[in-house]
Amino acid sequence: MLLTGFDPFDGEPLNPSWETVHALHGARIAGHRVAAAQLPTEFGRSLVELRRAIAAHRPALVLAVGQAGGRSRISIERVAINVDDARIPDNAGLQPVDRPIVADGPTAYFSTLPIKAMLAALQRAGIPAEISQTAGTYVCNHVFYGLMHQTARRRGVRAGFVHIPYLPEQAVRHRDAPSMAREDVLRALRLLVRVALTTREDARIAAGATA
Amino acid sequence: MLLTGFDPFDGEPLNPSWETVHALHGARIAGHRVAAAQLPTEFGRSLVELRRAIAAHRPALVLAVGQAGGRSRISIERVAINVDDARIPDNAGLQPVDRPIVADGPTAYFSTLPIKAMLAALQRAGIPAEISQTAGTYVCNHVFYGLMHQTARRRGVRAGFVHIPYLPEQAVRHRDAPSMAREDVLRALRLLVRVALTTREDARIAAGATA
Amino acid sequence: MLLTGFDPFDGEPLNPSWETVHALHGARIAGHRVAAAQLPTEFGRSLVELRRAIAAHRPALVLAVGQAGGRSRISIERVAINVDDARIPDNAGLQPVDRPIVADGPTAYFSTLPIKAMLAALQRAGIPAEISQTAGTYVCNHVFYGLMHQTARRRGVRAGFVHIPYLPEQAVRHRDAPSMAREDVLRALRLLVRVALTTREDARIAAGATA
Amino acid sequence: MLLTGFDPFDGEPLNPSWETVHALHGARIAGHRVAAAQLPTEFGRSLVELRRAIAAHRPALVLAVGQAGGRSRISIERVAINVDDARIPDNAGLQPVDRPIVADGPTAYFSTLPIKAMLAALQRAGIPAEISQTAGTYVCNHVFYGLMHQTARRRGVRAGFVHIPYLPEQAVRHRDAPSMAREDVLRALRLLVRVALTTREDARIAAGATA
Repeated sequence: MLLTGFDPFDGEPLNPSWETVHALHGARIAGHRVAAAQLPTEFGRSLVELRRAIAAHRPALVLAVGQAGGRSRISIERVAINVDDARIPDNAGLQPVDRPIVADGPTAYFSTLPIKAMLAALQRAGIPAEISQTAGTYVCNHVFYGLMHQTARRRGVRAGFVHIPYLPEQAVRHRDAPSMAREDVLRALRLLVRVALTTREDARIAAGATA
Repeated sequence: MLLTGFDPFDGEPLNPSWETVHALHGARIAGHRVAAAQLPTEFGRSLVELRRAIAAHRPALVLAVGQAGGRSRISIERVAINVDDARIPDNAGLQPVDRPIVADGPTAYFSTLPIKAMLAALQRAGIPAEISQTAGTYVCNHVFYGLMHQTARRRGVRAGFVHIPYLPEQAVRHRDAPSMAREDVLRALRLLVRVALTTREDARIAAGATA
Repeated sequence: MLLTGFDPFDGEPLNPSWETVHALHGARIAGHRVAAAQLPTEFGRSLVELRRAIAAHRPALVLAVGQAGGRSRISIERVAINVDDARIPDNAGLQPVDRPIVADGPTAYFSTLPIKAMLAALQRAGIPAEISQTAGTYVCNHVFYGLMHQTARRRGVRAGFVHIPYLPEQAVRHRDAPSMAREDVLRALRLLVRVALTTREDARIAAGATA
Repeated sequence: MLLTGFDPFDGEPLNPSWETVHALHGARIAGHRVAAAQLPTEFGRSLVELRRAIAAHRPALVLAVGQAGGRSRISIERVAINVDDARIPDNAGLQPVDRPIVADGPTAYFSTLPIKAMLAALQRAGIPAEISQTAGTYVCNHVFYGLMHQTARRRGVRAGFVHIPYLPEQAVRHRDAPSMAREDVLRALRLLVRVALTTREDARIAAGATA
């Protein structure tokens, strides 16, 4: 299976997604070997690198991971939307506004992962988690949408996206931002991968938002 | 043009969307007469009532409005997704979980309103506003999705959704919840309708979210 | 009675405390004439100006008002503490750190206003309000402490401090900051002054914080 | 030195303060042995137990620790105020409103710990921390005030209070509440004790609040 993380952006010294994802490179989970790949926080190159990694590893499962500064818990994304709208420039200086990611692509893709079973597994393990209804409109959503588009016609490939909080050492520099310890994020990622690999039918658990 | 609001839900004594929308019933904005219709906060009947109101008024513009308790500003929604996931039962006692709104419908619809021009107009008028990337997974998103589906093939009909904060008298009973004065919401709705009726090409203004 | 407000600070174009306080100058409330005085957002001069205003008006009630950007409701302050600790320089460029306001002064003063009766009056009027346990450590707390110290030995003079949110036009420029309409703040200030002038015994209403 | 924590309250299955404080019982830090004592979350008995623990251990340093559900970081308290105002009943069912803790006591006590040096040490270690200007008006502030009052005349005894976030397993059950890993809280407490024991002159670092 393939895990992806990003390089640092927005002035951060590190990106917690790559910090944790790369630590799982080579691990075996539920009989699958984990391959970790770093994607650049760039609208242009991120999906090229993702396609290359998928071609190289031919994974049955792809879980892309990104930083969500300001969120307090593991945020399992439900849906990717076909638009880039960048509040800040990406690492290559690009700042697309209201541009489709794939010109004739569908408006959105739902995650094909068992997101409710994944949520329940984290909560049972004492790790704060939530279903998120938006992955934003920056490079994270861009990669999530591109990932779903690239794997949409590959039979047997499941894919999805998870946002994670700042690490504590990042939150030191942000007034009042929550964070999650590296060990808890790692524990969460291992669990998420295991549940995604071993769950056929998703659980039916209410985890929506009224607004 | 048609403005819709909801009846109260979640224990509230009123719904700010109906409080403000019904006050605009009969007004003339940019040469169009405003018709206000109340929708029930029910997954079942809301779209039936919406279809009836659209058939009755044959509007060129439909703006649906809903309450977003906890949000601090006028929240112009970008996208409706094809799923119901109710955290709490609706006013008829129904609580669908992960059920598509339209069985074979597309995963999502984008608003067809000039959301960035609408955002800019509110900000110029000194009214706090934002683009929102999620209308939730409750009756508001249900109506937003249904609205876009019902109007998708009607030429010349534009449609979208706006969430509004609690009124001050509601926020009194919620620890630390923000609110917006009735007069400011009314002023905002008038402006939104005017801009939606008079703007062909949307503005290009970055207003996305990194996550 | 004397109402005080501040001039703008921290890059804001206006200060909602002065915007609203000065609009009440000359009003009669419960048989008392309101005098409004502007204080500079400066550790040095603010208390000099306050002393001058108190000497000029000899008020039976002094209510000082300040801006609390980020708070969502009228915040009736309970206690002033004897320390300056400025996160940002004041309008004269001064930034004291952990310096007592009055060298031999008591560690703190409680407001001598009927804060719970004031809270209840606002809530009955549908205006979001709260008791606050801290006025910060900047010029607002500095003035609050100085006010209580200056009036401590004046028989029959009651005094206190109230923080108010941003006005909507300020909140436009602050991502996700709450605000309160000018009319609601004015209505709140009138009520607060009336209750402070006419209430002998404070109400006994729980309005504390667990942390 | 003496570390105190509380038993669970407000429906929680555990109190992170006691979970972490008791794990340090018997440890040696900077040449001092740590004694951990549990205090009941009761206005009545907490200060009796505290007096007993101080009499038993005759500590040179007392650090009281409490849970602050909703805070995202280690919160070093600056000041204790002489009032109980309970939003919820304590564990014995008592709910005092606006009652002084010590009838003729001073309005407030400042912590006698080097709070800025403690803050800087945590931040250098990559642990999110802040100076807090209020410990609330519940049992935590009650114990903090009582602690300062009991030790006020004991030469060479320093004392203070620190609030800590929920543990991750608690935050699972609170929508959107931040948390801190047990290991990070333990690391923080050890550092705080070490700095408090070894620092004579506090650092001069701005860490105040504008409101």
